[in-house]
Amino acid sequence: MTDLYLIRHGIAAEHGTYQNDDERPLTQEGDRKTRKVASRLKELELEFDIILTSPLIRARQTAEILKAAGLSQQLEECAALAPGGNLHDWVSWYNNWKTTSAKAFALVGHQPDLGHWAELLLWGNFQESLIVKKAGVIGITLPSTGSPIGQSQLFWLTSPKFLLS
Amino acid sequence: MTDLYLIRHGIAAEHGTYQNDDERPLTQEGDRKTRKVASRLKELELEFDIILTSPLIRARQTAEILKAAGLSQQLEECAALAPGGNLHDWVSWYNNWKTTSAKAFALVGHQPDLGHWAELLLWGNFQESLIVKKAGVIGITLPSTGSPIGQSQLFWLTSPKFLLS
Repeated sequence: MTDLYLIRHGIAAEHGTYQNDDERPLTQEGDRKTRKVASRLKELELEFDIILTSPLIRARQTAEILKAAGLSQQLEECAALAPGGNLHDWVSWYNNWKTTSAKAFALVGHQPDLGHWAELLLWGNFQESLIVKKAGVIGITLPSTGSPIGQSQLFWLTSPKFLLS
Repeated sequence: MTDLYLIRHGIAAEHGTYQNDDERPLTQEGDRKTRKVASRLKELELEFDIILTSPLIRARQTAEILKAAGLSQQLEECAALAPGGNLHDWVSWYNNWKTTSAKAFALVGHQPDLGHWAELLLWGNFQESLIVKKAGVIGITLPSTGSPIGQSQLFWLTSPKFLLS
């Protein structure tokens, strides 16, 4: 069994403030809060074999913060994690990547995709039933064999509020 | 919108150690850990208009601990929260109880019921996709109008591990 952590990027510059939406960076508050979340995750002794991130700046920055906090040694971009990306694309990546020693990995991405993917993994379909705040975390246990879709289990869903205050 | 917190009873004496299973109390560790969870919930500024509890000892004790931590002034037993209870029975209670001023309430009960109820509220059916540890918490936002079944949203799911360590 492998644990998957879906992590939403931190608070970023408002939509529309950058000509290219992909380039919106974390705000100062977003950076600060994301660092706090990262150090809390480290305190909780989480460790990711790899962090895959959406290539968009705000996600990439979030992933760099997680790596810098010591949560993983490895960070890669994954196009399927950009907004509108397809679950099946990164599940194929996962099927290639996973080994018997893989314990946990993290994906850094966007809403509503992260919530949809989580629902697909848990129930096989989605209806926007999960609230995923910026810098929020979803923890899912993937089954050791067979497709993870509709066969996974949720062990954690939290907003920064419940992690930090 | 009303926030519902589903809280599983703390660690109790092993199944089979009491002639009447309903009378198994919290162990010393269960009591200690449940108190820690309760005070962490208080720190997070949670407040319940009412706590409803399963009549079984281990749930009742858990609910008393939550009340003693200052999370609610009101505590009542609800037969529908005993193992094998029916979601629709306490949803009827909820429909009678709710007022425009109702902000949050808590149900203290058992697995697998709590997980099933959460899934029914979120998706309208269940397939054991939620992992709910002892003294773990599920936070669900119920819609302001209409049936909550299949219309609610998950904002929190945590085990004591992520709350306390």
